[in-house]
Amino acid sequence: MKTLKVIKIGGNIIDNEVELNSFLKDFAKIETPKILVHGGGKLATKLANQMGVEVKMMNGRRITDADTLDIITMVYAGKINKDIVAKLQAVACNAVGFSGADGNSIISEKRPVKGIDFGFVGDVKKVNTGTLEILVENNVTPVFCAISHDEKGQLLNTNADTIASELAVGFAKNFKTELYYCFEKNGVLERIDDDDSLIENINTKTYKTLIEKGIIADGMLPKLNNCFHAIHNKVNKVCIGKPTMLFQTNTIYTTIQE
Amino acid sequence: MKTLKVIKIGGNIIDNEVELNSFLKDFAKIETPKILVHGGGKLATKLANQMGVEVKMMNGRRITDADTLDIITMVYAGKINKDIVAKLQAVACNAVGFSGADGNSIISEKRPVKGIDFGFVGDVKKVNTGTLEILVENNVTPVFCAISHDEKGQLLNTNADTIASELAVGFAKNFKTELYYCFEKNGVLERIDDDDSLIENINTKTYKTLIEKGIIADGMLPKLNNCFHAIHNKVNKVCIGKPTMLFQTNTIYTTIQE
Repeated sequence: MKTLKVIKIGGNIIDNEVELNSFLKDFAKIETPKILVHGGGKLATKLANQMGVEVKMMNGRRITDADTLDIITMVYAGKINKDIVAKLQAVACNAVGFSGADGNSIISEKRPVKGIDFGFVGDVKKVNTGTLEILVENNVTPVFCAISHDEKGQLLNTNADTIASELAVGFAKNFKTELYYCFEKNGVLERIDDDDSLIENINTKTYKTLIEKGIIADGMLPKLNNCFHAIHNKVNKVCIGKPTMLFQTNTIYTTIQE
Repeated sequence: MKTLKVIKIGGNIIDNEVELNSFLKDFAKIETPKILVHGGGKLATKLANQMGVEVKMMNGRRITDADTLDIITMVYAGKINKDIVAKLQAVACNAVGFSGADGNSIISEKRPVKGIDFGFVGDVKKVNTGTLEILVENNVTPVFCAISHDEKGQLLNTNADTIASELAVGFAKNFKTELYYCFEKNGVLERIDDDDSLIENINTKTYKTLIEKGIIADGMLPKLNNCFHAIHNKVNKVCIGKPTMLFQTNTIYTTIQE
């Protein structure tokens, strides 16, 4: 089976043009089939402020009302996605931008209201790799923003880490799939501010202990749940770390194991 | 050779959700390979106003400065394009949204400054149908917004009629290509306000006469230039009229001939 890499980059890379350009130049050189998934960065909040749309949070999570969904669609699927696609074409990587509606690739359902109404947020139900596989087999690189759809015409805001994990699982049927979460730290850390306190390997058992000890908490919890979802569903390799883990053999990072 | 239809819809359809939904439902049923090209509608101007970005016009044409390009990218490639793609998926048409950067499909160069600096406006240099043909052959329908790129990482604003015409010409090598410009009138009219004054056929010779008489002027001039560009470059059929020309045999419209 061919190897396929699903690589997710977050806001810290997207918000820094020098870093983004450097990353995309390296990314373009990856020879195996690959898919890029990008988060949002600060631009959506900036646009919401410019437009006078209030950012509504509930328990630390953004509520996606209709105006916010429009902003996310404009910024993620429009500005950021097309900029990345154009930049990749400039370094000879034949990219095509995707939301989950494109190619009917990521179908989700609007999160049911249980106490909190998150609005137009979608939980992934199904991934269709058909159209994507045709492209990947023809040396085209899909670039995903974090938007899915419900097959009834409604776009839905979906976490970018989840999109990456679900794509990796979807491709695991026909590819030896690897999932890479790139962010600004060396990986999962024992002490959040100490980049030298890297935990090199986490498996299902040690994960429980790390949660009990409070070492893995907050934003790292859903990220690691996405990692374990992938590793428990035939994804071959799951890593968290700096983007250099993809390009430089001497980079340290966290590997997730069964 | 297979027939491929390139169909362009303008702001009047996009700005009216009932009409857009009805059009997309009919469009989805077209069995031949097809490409949809959409214009912008009023949403870009609305967003510019909300963001406090000044709409700059010069001789009746919009100047695309950096802020305006961002707005266009967000509205055309983001909001409008993804909404159309999601709506098409809902009526079982497997659509994938495209700008000219996606699949490196439409390469343009920034319009040289000759008196007027139009800013980030691109004149089409080359169309690559490679990635598009792979999709079309697999029953996928590309949906184009009116944005191209310069292969150096720069997105450029390009007229939607031109995008449609250039795509039709690009596909004419391997397909029997038809180009349809849909708008709110029956076609090219003798008297602009009289929908009964349809000119059913225009050829290169009668076109000159119509220009001399002032019957074809203003916005119809570039539209018809795009029509003749197509018909002179192996596009099989070029029509202007109401969208019903595609779906109802009793619809009248204008046909462009060599």
